[in-house]
Amino acid sequence: MKLSKNRNPAVPGFKAAGLGCGIKSKNTKDLALIVSDVPATAAGIFTTNRVVSPGVTWSRRALKSGNCRAIVVNSGNANTVVGPKGMKDCDAITKKVAEELSIPQNQVLIASTGVIGVPLPSHKIIKAAPQLVKKLGRTSSNWTDAAEAIMTTDLVSKSDRVQYTFLGKSIVIGGITKGSGMIHPNMATMLGFLYTNAVIDSKTLKIALIEAADRSFNRITVDGDSSTNDCIIVLANGEAKNPTIKPNTSGYRKFVKALTAISKNLASKIVLDGEGATKFVTVRVQGGRTRKQAYLIANSVATSSLVKTALFGEDPNWGRIFCAVGNAGAPFDPDKVDILLNKNLLVKKGNPTNLSPKKLVKAMQQHEINITIDLHGGKEWEEVLTCDLSYDYVKINAEYTT
Amino acid sequence: MKLSKNRNPAVPGFKAAGLGCGIKSKNTKDLALIVSDVPATAAGIFTTNRVVSPGVTWSRRALKSGNCRAIVVNSGNANTVVGPKGMKDCDAITKKVAEELSIPQNQVLIASTGVIGVPLPSHKIIKAAPQLVKKLGRTSSNWTDAAEAIMTTDLVSKSDRVQYTFLGKSIVIGGITKGSGMIHPNMATMLGFLYTNAVIDSKTLKIALIEAADRSFNRITVDGDSSTNDCIIVLANGEAKNPTIKPNTSGYRKFVKALTAISKNLASKIVLDGEGATKFVTVRVQGGRTRKQAYLIANSVATSSLVKTALFGEDPNWGRIFCAVGNAGAPFDPDKVDILLNKNLLVKKGNPTNLSPKKLVKAMQQHEINITIDLHGGKEWEEVLTCDLSYDYVKINAEYTT
Repeated sequence: MKLSKNRNPAVPGFKAAGLGCGIKSKNTKDLALIVSDVPATAAGIFTTNRVVSPGVTWSRRALKSGNCRAIVVNSGNANTVVGPKGMKDCDAITKKVAEELSIPQNQVLIASTGVIGVPLPSHKIIKAAPQLVKKLGRTSSNWTDAAEAIMTTDLVSKSDRVQYTFLGKSIVIGGITKGSGMIHPNMATMLGFLYTNAVIDSKTLKIALIEAADRSFNRITVDGDSSTNDCIIVLANGEAKNPTIKPNTSGYRKFVKALTAISKNLASKIVLDGEGATKFVTVRVQGGRTRKQAYLIANSVATSSLVKTALFGEDPNWGRIFCAVGNAGAPFDPDKVDILLNKNLLVKKGNPTNLSPKKLVKAMQQHEINITIDLHGGKEWEEVLTCDLSYDYVKINAEYTT
Repeated sequence: MKLSKNRNPAVPGFKAAGLGCGIKSKNTKDLALIVSDVPATAAGIFTTNRVVSPGVTWSRRALKSGNCRAIVVNSGNANTVVGPKGMKDCDAITKKVAEELSIPQNQVLIASTGVIGVPLPSHKIIKAAPQLVKKLGRTSSNWTDAAEAIMTTDLVSKSDRVQYTFLGKSIVIGGITKGSGMIHPNMATMLGFLYTNAVIDSKTLKIALIEAADRSFNRITVDGDSSTNDCIIVLANGEAKNPTIKPNTSGYRKFVKALTAISKNLASKIVLDGEGATKFVTVRVQGGRTRKQAYLIANSVATSSLVKTALFGEDPNWGRIFCAVGNAGAPFDPDKVDILLNKNLLVKKGNPTNLSPKKLVKAMQQHEINITIDLHGGKEWEEVLTCDLSYDYVKINAEYTT
């Protein structure tokens, strides 16, 4: 896929800010705020990890009303496994932010990312809250501040925007996100914030978010780990004044299509910036009997350390791909399988083709690698995006806290 | 655990040989043979990968009779995903070996390990078969030849022997094995050959092998991948003349204990020689409600790239361990969990202790790392052995075929 540069993710009726409050080293942004001008319908998807940050618990609870105005996010500290102080900090921070914005506390969501097990210096956040609110604005640079403030080992900030017309109204969806290790389906160490001016109730918004995430954020993997803090939150503030988007309508399908498009762009940006990544890899399994079968096989290939190191080394060891297909725990007929890498047929009906290793090496030298596995057993497909496994992944993760 | 050096794995009534037949580069051993003097009862456990080597199919079929005399093994080529030639080669090789040994062809098992998708130069094996049979012997150096001939990226050969007395008879179990990447439960790229002089029928032998493997070979992981070729085979030739070992007897329990001991030693040797390994890591989960729960959690920690890179870097980022516990997909109560690393308490009842990072770094500098996770939810336990994830793992696997 071709990736666009970061688009200005501003959306009518939303403001943003970002600054450094001292959690990370001096002068590095680590605190972000997104605010809707009016109460917005809201939905979220959270980590499947059974150890969760108090921030996740807080936001899950706050989302039950289906309404919210603000999201406060810090990086540099996950506020996780820190004892009862964790939840007390969530309470104190959201209370302070709500006061500064003059909104109810239960309309403030919270998210954190960074090191686990170290008490959050919440006093720094509380002290910075007035200035953070003061910095709120609608310009591209306000959103860049916010996108930068949620970064951890990310090398670049990640934002995007899509726009379409629905019954004469301009619907805009914007989003910012961060990676970049511990990325895996069902919310890796990934924070994603989407916001739109569409009119849509919170239940429909939740269904749309799940549909979009299952073709994007839930289909990326860097290292197979899901963190304790991950979330994707979407706010819809209704400023577009469109007729309410209802499930099972063409308006819903248009909205999901746009939400999926921006989600996929943002998810791809996370993979492209995966820790130590030198390759952008799409593993597509088609001809599946079910989506689950296709997903299990795509995921097995995308998470195989042996496949990922071979891609890094541009080593034409395609047998590892077939091996990972067989390892997925999903039934299939090995004698029907075709495997292609950047359009080079490696395996035809379960047997090797006579493709020269030289030609394969040349194909592997490209930055974008597309592995296609056709099971010839049905019509379902799944795609999982990943990167290679390099020396730098080891380096970054061997020295994370020290 | 303390690991013994390789013991001479010779067992009465068995012969071995190993030589280089030219599959690997010149002068490197790549062909091994193990032969019992008399027909032996036999059992095997094979890879769970759905793509399997024709050698696996051949040996599974041959084991159905419950009897066998010989195992021929080549390294350097997996004889996998090579089309119909793969099974023809198995037939031709076992036929030739049977002829040279003057035994029925269906008493010859076969195993291969190495690169996938490259046709096996079976003519080299067939040409070398007479010399291989001629070299068969009972000395320590014959067994060393065999143990070396099955190596791939292994740095050292791996062999062991245990002995115990049963009703006045000396029961001996010997074994050789190889790793060293693609190691994961349910038969990674692992070949293991065990042989004993015990009298035991093939059904009982199979049950004993499964019990032993579930505490050893099926509890090690290097990189989470199971290969297409893995197998553990055990032969019992009855030369000890003991009363037949029957299920659910004290004699059976003694046999399983010894078989588990040698299997665990050999499995540990594989992990110690894991590709790029600098640490020997035991992840123990205790206080589990079920063995399955304990296993899922131990395996999640042992396969986490984030935990493994932190161990390599001696980075006191213990939050990653707790995160991997939560990631296992098994239910547990996070508020009851204790986590220890080499006896240092990191987490007590789900909360961090005030252990200094300095003290933790010191503990992590040891070569042997014992991570204990107590769920305080029952009495079941599981242990998974693994190694760290280092630069050298990436290097070895990025350049495997080239």
